[in-house]
Amino acid sequence: MSISNRLIIFDTTLRDGEQSPGASMTKEEKLRIARQLERMRVDVIEAGFAAASPGDFEAIRSIASVVRESTVCSLSRANDKDIARAAEALAPAPRKRIHTFIATSPLHMKMKLRMEPEQVLEQARLAIKFARQFTDDIEFSPEDGSRSEEDFLCRVLETVIAEGATTINFPDTVGYAMPEQFGATIRRLRERVPNSDKAIWSVHCHNDLGLAVANSLAGVTIGGARQIECTINGLGERAGNTALEEVVMAVKTRSDFFKLDLGIDTTQIVAASKMVSQITGFPVQPNKAVVGANAFAHASGIHQDGILKARETYEIMRAEDVGWTANKIVLGKLSGRNAFKQRLQELGIELESESEVNAAFARFKELADRKAEIFDEDIMALMSDEEHAAEGETYRLVSLSQRSETGELPLAKVVFSIDGKEFSCEGTGDGPVDAMVNAIEKEAKSGAELLLFSINAISNGTQSQGEVSMRLSKNGRIVNAVGADPDIIVASAKAYLSGLNKLDSKVERIAAQG
Amino acid sequence: MSISNRLIIFDTTLRDGEQSPGASMTKEEKLRIARQLERMRVDVIEAGFAAASPGDFEAIRSIASVVRESTVCSLSRANDKDIARAAEALAPAPRKRIHTFIATSPLHMKMKLRMEPEQVLEQARLAIKFARQFTDDIEFSPEDGSRSEEDFLCRVLETVIAEGATTINFPDTVGYAMPEQFGATIRRLRERVPNSDKAIWSVHCHNDLGLAVANSLAGVTIGGARQIECTINGLGERAGNTALEEVVMAVKTRSDFFKLDLGIDTTQIVAASKMVSQITGFPVQPNKAVVGANAFAHASGIHQDGILKARETYEIMRAEDVGWTANKIVLGKLSGRNAFKQRLQELGIELESESEVNAAFARFKELADRKAEIFDEDIMALMSDEEHAAEGETYRLVSLSQRSETGELPLAKVVFSIDGKEFSCEGTGDGPVDAMVNAIEKEAKSGAELLLFSINAISNGTQSQGEVSMRLSKNGRIVNAVGADPDIIVASAKAYLSGLNKLDSKVERIAAQG
Repeated sequence: MSISNRLIIFDTTLRDGEQSPGASMTKEEKLRIARQLERMRVDVIEAGFAAASPGDFEAIRSIASVVRESTVCSLSRANDKDIARAAEALAPAPRKRIHTFIATSPLHMKMKLRMEPEQVLEQARLAIKFARQFTDDIEFSPEDGSRSEEDFLCRVLETVIAEGATTINFPDTVGYAMPEQFGATIRRLRERVPNSDKAIWSVHCHNDLGLAVANSLAGVTIGGARQIECTINGLGERAGNTALEEVVMAVKTRSDFFKLDLGIDTTQIVAASKMVSQITGFPVQPNKAVVGANAFAHASGIHQDGILKARETYEIMRAEDVGWTANKIVLGKLSGRNAFKQRLQELGIELESESEVNAAFARFKELADRKAEIFDEDIMALMSDEEHAAEGETYRLVSLSQRSETGELPLAKVVFSIDGKEFSCEGTGDGPVDAMVNAIEKEAKSGAELLLFSINAISNGTQSQGEVSMRLSKNGRIVNAVGADPDIIVASAKAYLSGLNKLDSKVERIAAQG
Repeated sequence: MSISNRLIIFDTTLRDGEQSPGASMTKEEKLRIARQLERMRVDVIEAGFAAASPGDFEAIRSIASVVRESTVCSLSRANDKDIARAAEALAPAPRKRIHTFIATSPLHMKMKLRMEPEQVLEQARLAIKFARQFTDDIEFSPEDGSRSEEDFLCRVLETVIAEGATTINFPDTVGYAMPEQFGATIRRLRERVPNSDKAIWSVHCHNDLGLAVANSLAGVTIGGARQIECTINGLGERAGNTALEEVVMAVKTRSDFFKLDLGIDTTQIVAASKMVSQITGFPVQPNKAVVGANAFAHASGIHQDGILKARETYEIMRAEDVGWTANKIVLGKLSGRNAFKQRLQELGIELESESEVNAAFARFKELADRKAEIFDEDIMALMSDEEHAAEGETYRLVSLSQRSETGELPLAKVVFSIDGKEFSCEGTGDGPVDAMVNAIEKEAKSGAELLLFSINAISNGTQSQGEVSMRLSKNGRIVNAVGADPDIIVASAKAYLSGLNKLDSKVERIAAQG
């Protein structure tokens, strides 16, 4: 079989990544990430699962309205209603893909679908046929494919290709595969399925055993797949999905071995990583490949001596190639509205109206009064705050004072509003964050439980803003919330109130495949 | 070639892991980790590089004195002086290994060693011969082996095996290898080197392209290696080393595929991960395989519904198998000295004298006065603090008060001692942490630069202690320091002063191979 050398990068940060507990994003956040993915020249952006909820539908529709170069994709179950909903959401996109799936393993067919194999086969066929009305770009995934009977799987895949599916995606949903076996399975399927070369084959791997990147690459080299499904920072349920930055840099750095063409602008990788981390509140560990703070020693201000003199002796990639640059002071107290607006554009943040620009600029001046040097990261955090504030919030911070002293109980006074009505509460606690939460809870009485709490400095130095991530849980729902401020107690209060707002918003959605 | 099915796990957290900028550990910290590694039944513990510094020597010697089951190993360059120093440090160990290395690539031989190949060959031979006086367990690594001329490499390896090297370790120092190629290289070397089956072959991989685990496993399955060198949490320079928890769980979970025997007690993995993270200040991201907070959804309090009802459908490992347990309240205000001492023992913390137990118990009571529920994590953080305090520190926190209020400049008053002399300083800043640092710097005038700052909650809930990690840099030296307290500003002050103490201690060491 002769296959193309073009490797398609299919990013599913906004769909499978977002499915990670606590990683849910607003429409505005998804739009920002989608714009960054397009800037990085990702081939396909899976923007969500249109039928899952009205919020998902709206997010896909917005992304389909602004993304011009990348293909925009929606997931959909294999039924007409889901597919029509996906098509409607994707309608504005110049390039659109419908990604439909159905389970093909005996366990899932019996337990989840309650269908006979022949029914599943027929439903898959009808789904492709129906989807073809809306687009020629159709992807099909046999859910739990690795535990399906191979003869049956081959019949399903043959059928969907005959009906017009242009991409066949093979998932390792539970991260159980071993590279050689996984690659060999895809090779065998491609050999057995008639007309398999009429579709592009794709892999979708999870990292439970630390092998998502290796499995994806084996799917390509051994199996002949030419699409990799992945997420920024490897975001995703459990140990996450294949990390986009790792597969891309492996293929690029070892182009002598892979001999594949990639469309990705790798210099946008670090910006994308920081954006996703900041929006979801999922930190990236320092020793994470490519995008960790230590991945390139000198990029984090670390100077090595002696043995490391010859940089190329120990470095296989250059930090600049993935977009690591020194922090630059971009704006300050004296920067004007135009400079601010221009920098927003350069960062890919597009505001819809001039009054939104004005509001953001006012917040920027407020920050610049308290913090002399404003970095790109500060602007991004500010805009995250702005967006959280925009979406019909219930709880809002008005002011805060707090103190702690050795030998005394920390005390916090918080003034905040609930649906516009102001409350002033005092609380004490083990530390000032605890005191602040206790103060808020006197009035809010949310009953939310704090599962994770972390703070990272946005840039170097103690003058940096602290970015607080809190994961809250209530009645089985999990949200991650972020707050940024030069004062970490204020940042914590912002994060906590943002979390209460997120818990407050009614979200009902259908779970999709892993 | 017939080879054993026993896979040897060689942990180098204390040597190659510690080489990561900012990850340096004290002797006491290394001892705690070594005890945990032994409890996990790691086969070989590389405890350090004895000739690097007197501190490294002492740490290896202490570990050699307490570890009874695992083999204790020291790295050493291929010269008599280094080897004798390693042997001296290892003397108390019942099982000891000397791991000696020399570069075999043209570039390194010429630029770093300034030696001819024949001289390198002879020096390698003499090193093994000399080391044999001290132990029969000798490991040899050809540094930069992947860029060495293969004919020459084969001659070197043949020579060292003939001289008595029992383990041959093949490193991928820069994380550049691809699994199939890496496995094939080791296979070819094993086929070409006469008497290769008299040694156990080993792999040592780095994760720059996200492939350390896959390369290590290919070294085993394709290459026939039977030792994997790895670190807890994948700690190590840049993107780190092969993660112990990932290779171990891959081999165990897919025992149907690997058919290898492992000695590891996997239920100790999470405790080891938390210990290393807490001591080094390197956080573990939530979507890290096996040891991340999200790796097992239900372990972090996340309840899934609907589709995930049948747990085994989506889970390939059980959280309990790697030591995830719900946080347990283990001690409280009313717990006595004996209960405290017993819990320390259960956690593997062994104090040398009764007066040390008394001091630790006093700190425990102090904490229990402020925090009702004391978890294992709190005790571990307390003991870390205790140990930092123990090692002849210059700077020590006496008391702190701070306050911040919307619209006013945050203020901190810090009382701290420098070499026993107390100072009281005030400072202001953008936030309370900045104000605290400015207060301390009025007297300390260290000129240290803050590179990274992060806080994680030690257990769930706002009543948790905050654990602050700070990475400081001064004159090219990097240190990571950790501080824990229910009040995150106090924790920050502890971390900052601990960082100044670490920068203050004179450490000169020789850099080793990657």
